[in-house]
Amino acid sequence: MLGMMQDWPLLCHKILDYAAAQHGGREIVSRSVEGPILRTTYADIHARAKKASQALEADGFGLGDRIATLGWNSARHMEAWYGAMGIGGVYHTLNPRLFPEQIAWIMNHAEDKGLFVDLSFLPIVEAIADNVPSLRKIIVLTDADHMPKSSKLEMVDYESWIGQHDGDFAWKQFDENTACGMCYTSGTTGDPKGVLYSHRSNVLHALISVQPDALNLGSNEVIMPVVPMFHANAWGIAHSAPMVGAKIVNPGPLMDGASIYELLDSEKVTMTAAVPTVWLMLLSYLEETGKKLPHLNRVVIGGSACPRAMTEAFQNDYGVQVIHAWGMTEMSPLGSLGVMKPVYSDLEGEVLLDMQEKQGYAPFGVEMQITDDENVELPWDGKTFGKLKVRGPGVAKAYYGGAGVEQFDQEGWFDTGDVAHINANGYMQITDRSKDVIKSGGEWISTIDLENLAVGHPDIQEAAVIGIVHSKWDERPLLICITKQGKNPAAEDILEFMRGKVAKWWMPNAVAFVEEIPHTATGKIQKTELRKQFADYRFDDG
Amino acid sequence: MLGMMQDWPLLCHKILDYAAAQHGGREIVSRSVEGPILRTTYADIHARAKKASQALEADGFGLGDRIATLGWNSARHMEAWYGAMGIGGVYHTLNPRLFPEQIAWIMNHAEDKGLFVDLSFLPIVEAIADNVPSLRKIIVLTDADHMPKSSKLEMVDYESWIGQHDGDFAWKQFDENTACGMCYTSGTTGDPKGVLYSHRSNVLHALISVQPDALNLGSNEVIMPVVPMFHANAWGIAHSAPMVGAKIVNPGPLMDGASIYELLDSEKVTMTAAVPTVWLMLLSYLEETGKKLPHLNRVVIGGSACPRAMTEAFQNDYGVQVIHAWGMTEMSPLGSLGVMKPVYSDLEGEVLLDMQEKQGYAPFGVEMQITDDENVELPWDGKTFGKLKVRGPGVAKAYYGGAGVEQFDQEGWFDTGDVAHINANGYMQITDRSKDVIKSGGEWISTIDLENLAVGHPDIQEAAVIGIVHSKWDERPLLICITKQGKNPAAEDILEFMRGKVAKWWMPNAVAFVEEIPHTATGKIQKTELRKQFADYRFDDG
Repeated sequence: MLGMMQDWPLLCHKILDYAAAQHGGREIVSRSVEGPILRTTYADIHARAKKASQALEADGFGLGDRIATLGWNSARHMEAWYGAMGIGGVYHTLNPRLFPEQIAWIMNHAEDKGLFVDLSFLPIVEAIADNVPSLRKIIVLTDADHMPKSSKLEMVDYESWIGQHDGDFAWKQFDENTACGMCYTSGTTGDPKGVLYSHRSNVLHALISVQPDALNLGSNEVIMPVVPMFHANAWGIAHSAPMVGAKIVNPGPLMDGASIYELLDSEKVTMTAAVPTVWLMLLSYLEETGKKLPHLNRVVIGGSACPRAMTEAFQNDYGVQVIHAWGMTEMSPLGSLGVMKPVYSDLEGEVLLDMQEKQGYAPFGVEMQITDDENVELPWDGKTFGKLKVRGPGVAKAYYGGAGVEQFDQEGWFDTGDVAHINANGYMQITDRSKDVIKSGGEWISTIDLENLAVGHPDIQEAAVIGIVHSKWDERPLLICITKQGKNPAAEDILEFMRGKVAKWWMPNAVAFVEEIPHTATGKIQKTELRKQFADYRFDDG
Repeated sequence: MLGMMQDWPLLCHKILDYAAAQHGGREIVSRSVEGPILRTTYADIHARAKKASQALEADGFGLGDRIATLGWNSARHMEAWYGAMGIGGVYHTLNPRLFPEQIAWIMNHAEDKGLFVDLSFLPIVEAIADNVPSLRKIIVLTDADHMPKSSKLEMVDYESWIGQHDGDFAWKQFDENTACGMCYTSGTTGDPKGVLYSHRSNVLHALISVQPDALNLGSNEVIMPVVPMFHANAWGIAHSAPMVGAKIVNPGPLMDGASIYELLDSEKVTMTAAVPTVWLMLLSYLEETGKKLPHLNRVVIGGSACPRAMTEAFQNDYGVQVIHAWGMTEMSPLGSLGVMKPVYSDLEGEVLLDMQEKQGYAPFGVEMQITDDENVELPWDGKTFGKLKVRGPGVAKAYYGGAGVEQFDQEGWFDTGDVAHINANGYMQITDRSKDVIKSGGEWISTIDLENLAVGHPDIQEAAVIGIVHSKWDERPLLICITKQGKNPAAEDILEFMRGKVAKWWMPNAVAFVEEIPHTATGKIQKTELRKQFADYRFDDG
């Protein structure tokens, strides 16, 4: 027997309808690539997104068409997303920090037909457009006055393009499982893999993420998503903020400390979200200038592990709560948040900081488990670590085109590729990537823990740990280091520094000093490259 | 093109799975009908609900079977709900305040096969069981020691019944639109009408209701649902509290001021929810004893309009925020909440109280409109009032068995039967029931506004306004009053008191004094009865 409740499909444009109806006057403030700070409202974005839908339809776009975006966070970028979704199209965010040939590869894989692009990224498009045969329309997110005098590209400015339409448009209706968004992961190995979000997954993810124990987003918040819209589905903020009528402040292209501070202060931002790198710049700026953050209440930090010193600085020096979060492009992206449950709500000082080094716990809608290599579930004891697997309405069930099938199992679990432990209260901590973890005599050793420990040595600039085959133990850790300029520590000196701080059997068998450690375009250590370089390396005893 | 996200059906028992996994140690405290205060946890409720599922299966219950409950709020009652839902059954809450013959009518209409019942309600069941032929199993929500020595009923105690099972049970899997719950409306006219909730509607309603600008429910809250589980789907709290791991404090059968205060204080309750009547008792108790509410942060008041004086007392005398809410059984039930948007966030004093007389604004997932009799949408100007219509995933699309079809239109709007205005910022205020509103010369007059005004006269005990046919104006208002004991005001005295406080053309044409005003079992004025009594009444000029 079915219930007798309304068939009200979870469609993303209903979020914008709601924002316009209930929070129409709430502002969206964006620093533009042209320079000025632009102000608009949810009512305006709603009206203009409808014009964008009309313009896309007039240009022959329709259901299922992938429409790429290459832009900083802005109201126009948000209109482009909703305009595309409103005709059943798919916004496809491209990461401008990738190499142009990677961007072209991704566009060809996705078969993007349209592209919204910021003025500042036109050189990228000029470099690759000829190699993307599916691309047939380029819309520059600016107005006629700012269009370049000449270009090899055929393109139109966004304002003129939507200006031809009246906004009298009914969003298309379709199944809530219809695709609406796309984002490729920039893995450290192999080709990028595409995640294809649905209207349902985005709406549910937004509902899950606004909860008090997640982003805690309400209409009185002023949120600055420093995290770019092209990074992991904008952490869902392009959907969650309008769902509750929060004011959005977009930093646009400028993420240096002074520029971020300027908007935090002038717009009285109450919460913000980004990767640790951005906050290093802000904290340096604050320290140099002696400025404070009186309006800011909390900062969500994810993308990579938040250093303890950063949490300490925000909380103790500036009175800003840090929410350490973890997620993945494949998860829409939120997976866990370091908000304190009652059992930890009285923690303070170092004990609180200890707990905040964990990536937090999963909200309703994200199921987690850790397993060993044989898929046996491991206990939540805060020590035993295993492959982290997740399930939920915001989690991918496959990659676009079918890559990476080995990450998805029969029971619906997605293998995140991370290795983690979870404590008895559900707080998870990432300890490694599963392809990097070292398997020594059947036990696992976390390379990240060893690297974090090694860089604590005063002479070490950067460290990477990889597994080297070993006749007795299968694999043993090799510590690879870059020393600080002018320093020349002995291997034994580094090992002595580490001794006693990790289990004895975790200790690296040797230390190798190198001039350079290879990185990806997005700054991650390329361990595959290192493993190639050290393919013939053997320990004296192994 | 469909998205490639996981098929993760929205099933209610996933909420309890989540609570057990992530908030397993969080307490549920219940005052039992047997007397003692019982303490349990989400982990326990989860384990015992699985035993209840096994016991139901062993008794031959399955998909779609309606299983009634007649009980106060308790952990066992919650286990019964989840146990029923876990096999694809339908919990069906019965309101013990209805007359026994009404309860029997409802059970027969729903064809209930099983019944969970509190000890205190056995007399009702003994009175009606013979008249409900579908009923074949009665489980008393108690243990063997408390079972009555003799009864005409064949029944089993809950603890012995689940005690035969081991809890090793996998919840049944089915479509998220499967029915899971049922509640009949106790209308002021006609037969009760059944609302049939689905797993999807309950899960979405819970996600919508925990939002910061709705119930603002997180794991650190201690919530006391004074609203009974049999009242309008427990206001969703049996789903929303476990979804976030909030501690629940169930008042059980005792709702007097002293009993409610005792639990608010001893369990450090941070938020609570009930109809205004309950709060009158608590506020009297506090006034008499001089006690305060240091732990309580906010109180959600709905079910009928919250009197201004009540809001004032809670906020000004006790520092407890009032959230005036509106909803309906047909809406799962939340429809709007009087939380302040930024535009009103600085209001205080009388101006804040003015705004709090409104029932608030709709969260994402509840669409609202007001229309005239010809279905033309009316403006949101805070004055123009019309039929209030709603749409959303938590709103009924029909009544069980097909009654009331006239309330559901083609575009999916449900006509609430309320008349309301909505202001430019989306804040809605109920002004009448549409069947009570008086249509005078094409314009509408709110009977509730006139009644509220009339009871402000010092000699008036209770007032009701009904429309009387009028040759020129179609209808004109008649004010019907009960005077306070020993008072004998003149009709003109009452009218003079009202004059100038409402538009001139709203003024009642006459006043009738009566000894008694008829009420329903749940305390609402029966205007149908009054209209019958005054069917032959005519005004001097009409």
